[in-house]
Amino acid sequence: MPDGAPQPRSFLAAVDAFASGRDTPVAFLDRCLAVYEALDAEVKAFVTVNLEGARAAAEASAARWKAGGPLSRIDGMPVGVKDVIETADMPTGMGSPLFEGWRSNRDSATVRALREAGAIVVGKTVTTEFAATVPGPTRNPFDLGRTPGGSSSGSAAAVGSGMLSAALGTQVVGSIIRPASYCGCWGYKPSLGGLNRGGSHDYMSQSCAGVIAASRADTWQVAREIVIRAGGDPGFPGIAGPETAPEAAPLRSLVFLETPGWQSANPAAKAALKDVIADLTSTGVEVLTRQSHREVAALEEALPEVLPLTRTINAWESRWPLNTYHDRDASKLSANMRERLAEAEAMSIDDYRTALARRSEIRAIHAALAETATACIGLSAPDVAPVGIESTGNPIFAVPASLLGVPALSMPLAKLGDLPLGIQLIGFMDRDADLFATAAAVEQVARGAQPLKRAS
Amino acid sequence: MPDGAPQPRSFLAAVDAFASGRDTPVAFLDRCLAVYEALDAEVKAFVTVNLEGARAAAEASAARWKAGGPLSRIDGMPVGVKDVIETADMPTGMGSPLFEGWRSNRDSATVRALREAGAIVVGKTVTTEFAATVPGPTRNPFDLGRTPGGSSSGSAAAVGSGMLSAALGTQVVGSIIRPASYCGCWGYKPSLGGLNRGGSHDYMSQSCAGVIAASRADTWQVAREIVIRAGGDPGFPGIAGPETAPEAAPLRSLVFLETPGWQSANPAAKAALKDVIADLTSTGVEVLTRQSHREVAALEEALPEVLPLTRTINAWESRWPLNTYHDRDASKLSANMRERLAEAEAMSIDDYRTALARRSEIRAIHAALAETATACIGLSAPDVAPVGIESTGNPIFAVPASLLGVPALSMPLAKLGDLPLGIQLIGFMDRDADLFATAAAVEQVARGAQPLKRAS
Repeated sequence: MPDGAPQPRSFLAAVDAFASGRDTPVAFLDRCLAVYEALDAEVKAFVTVNLEGARAAAEASAARWKAGGPLSRIDGMPVGVKDVIETADMPTGMGSPLFEGWRSNRDSATVRALREAGAIVVGKTVTTEFAATVPGPTRNPFDLGRTPGGSSSGSAAAVGSGMLSAALGTQVVGSIIRPASYCGCWGYKPSLGGLNRGGSHDYMSQSCAGVIAASRADTWQVAREIVIRAGGDPGFPGIAGPETAPEAAPLRSLVFLETPGWQSANPAAKAALKDVIADLTSTGVEVLTRQSHREVAALEEALPEVLPLTRTINAWESRWPLNTYHDRDASKLSANMRERLAEAEAMSIDDYRTALARRSEIRAIHAALAETATACIGLSAPDVAPVGIESTGNPIFAVPASLLGVPALSMPLAKLGDLPLGIQLIGFMDRDADLFATAAAVEQVARGAQPLKRAS
Repeated sequence: MPDGAPQPRSFLAAVDAFASGRDTPVAFLDRCLAVYEALDAEVKAFVTVNLEGARAAAEASAARWKAGGPLSRIDGMPVGVKDVIETADMPTGMGSPLFEGWRSNRDSATVRALREAGAIVVGKTVTTEFAATVPGPTRNPFDLGRTPGGSSSGSAAAVGSGMLSAALGTQVVGSIIRPASYCGCWGYKPSLGGLNRGGSHDYMSQSCAGVIAASRADTWQVAREIVIRAGGDPGFPGIAGPETAPEAAPLRSLVFLETPGWQSANPAAKAALKDVIADLTSTGVEVLTRQSHREVAALEEALPEVLPLTRTINAWESRWPLNTYHDRDASKLSANMRERLAEAEAMSIDDYRTALARRSEIRAIHAALAETATACIGLSAPDVAPVGIESTGNPIFAVPASLLGVPALSMPLAKLGDLPLGIQLIGFMDRDADLFATAAAVEQVARGAQPLKRAS
């Protein structure tokens, strides 16, 4: 039963006890479900659960651990699946009345891989409408009066509160990094094409399947177990790296990235990031800024374009799917979706090509930084979760990595008062393992220094 | 009513008569349907037709032409849709008992674009099982004892016989170029991502949506009308070029590409190609060969790898979708599909990455030819359509462009006896319009010279 502040629940922290017999996947699931039973009537992280299926899967997993033959290091891990990703045993509702109760009767590539690895699919987690902007009913487990963020709202709320150890999310603007920040989780948006999107309804060219989890190690492991079974998107190499989470790597130099969000970010959030940066500097890490390095300034100068450019690209790429929904029943599309469709209808393919060309230029500006820096560091969001659940918050810090197509991690290393705030690392294309190694080093420094809790 | 040899039916050749009122889309459709009624009981090009819908669409199109406001140059064109591509008004059966009668209740991106342009979707055309190797019941309209080729079997048979002016196909190995060659059609496999695959069940990294049509001009126009409305795959620029088929461009130099198919090709087929090449040479075109140019030899040396490499890549990329079919009902998968799945299950992601890396190397070898040649020319198939419908024939000449990801055109410029044989042009990535301009020049030379009909 939950007592006090929400507490993410690492699965990998428990597996040694499974191996020794001191704990079992059945007991682990029971602890998760106790939180679910206590909180989900109010948090509303789930659209659907399959508790009977989950319990049966936990029994089977427990038998494998007892026999010394788990299918993987995540055998028995309770996971959730964002409700735009197909599951054979549960409907996939897309956060839209158009798909309420819709069954594809198949598992997505990611879900099938998770089941092959022994993970337990507990349920489908709430998404905004078509993983875009119109929120579902989910509330932030750290403060029920606040949004959990979106669009992977339920995934972050369920992991942040300890109902699950990990959940699948998707991101095309800020849909993993932002809710992970608001709900005290690790959030991982891989390199473009890093995880196979087959059977996931996120069709856009910046869309990525990703992982929200309770720890850095759980995050890596879930991604790893998926990719070796399902690969990345067809034609992409998929996330490459070691069998377990990469060890901390020596930190050469980091770019402190303001992005256009910095101007309007909460001063307390800025101070929290600056504390982390100060700790890093004190251990000898060089921190490059727009003031100190021309290459950083060049990127910063391009970043104000990133959100409008993303919206333009997404609009054109949404034209076909939105029209199919519109054809079916236009009255069941939100005003936001109808506006996006109108924007798409007003575009020509030449407008789209111009946007793609500009995106390529901005990607090249960022890629050039790889010669001088290990990663970029910044905030995951301009503040803790805002009050109210009518909006999922501001994606301004998350969108650069989406447009760049590079891996990003939100790390739950800061708090303002009792509310979590993510520190974001942004890496380089197809160097996801390097980003995790950097994150391990940053986490060591941040956890070793004074507590990062500040007054809000 | 058909009389004598099958005759592809160009729509663009008729539109001036629509504009002047001498002909109408209703009458055009009637001429198509007369062939359908006379032949399709034996040819079996269609899985499903929607004749009532087609007639209503033709009436609407006729009214627009009469009013002087057609939606596009293909307003009223009777088209077919390969049965792996979704249609709102007809089931999408994938050539598999697993999907017999399955309805997605939406149009694919390509189909929706065609309808927006006023095209008339007459029906769904037969595909092999999941657009792979196990054939459907379709027969070659030039000889009912022979295969139409595959996997876009029905599309080629329907266009070759004049039941339709154009049809959608897909290609990942040889599924457009080969049936177009066997059925006397133009077959166009665009550059990778050239046409939006949304709602088309061809998930692989070499998969392309493409067009089979009655003339070069019809082929270009169909692709053009789709791309300006639906774009290419998300993140790709889509086929770029002029509003109507590119004019003939001066031919600088062509590469004569043997490929590993040359050794076993029918000598009469080789002679037919050599006739075309001789005609080109006589007009001053330089023809580069593996003997004359080291860069050509480098490509030829890599091409024997192309078919096995494609199979390896396709196997890994099929693992997830095939497993979802296997989960549903393994008894309804062909032995071929079960073998491909077994191959996938025996692979690791590292095997796949190795194959992708080799593919990139071969693409680079080909791309280097762009500096010295306008396009490559070769056969579309090693012979006319083989006898029997148990096999869709040898894809050996079609697979290079599939692996390279570059545009390819099969041109119906040769015959062996009464049977058609395609001459293939292979272009360079995202230079599809240049390829059509080259094709226009080659067609002029070939049609201007002596008839290319030879004894078989």
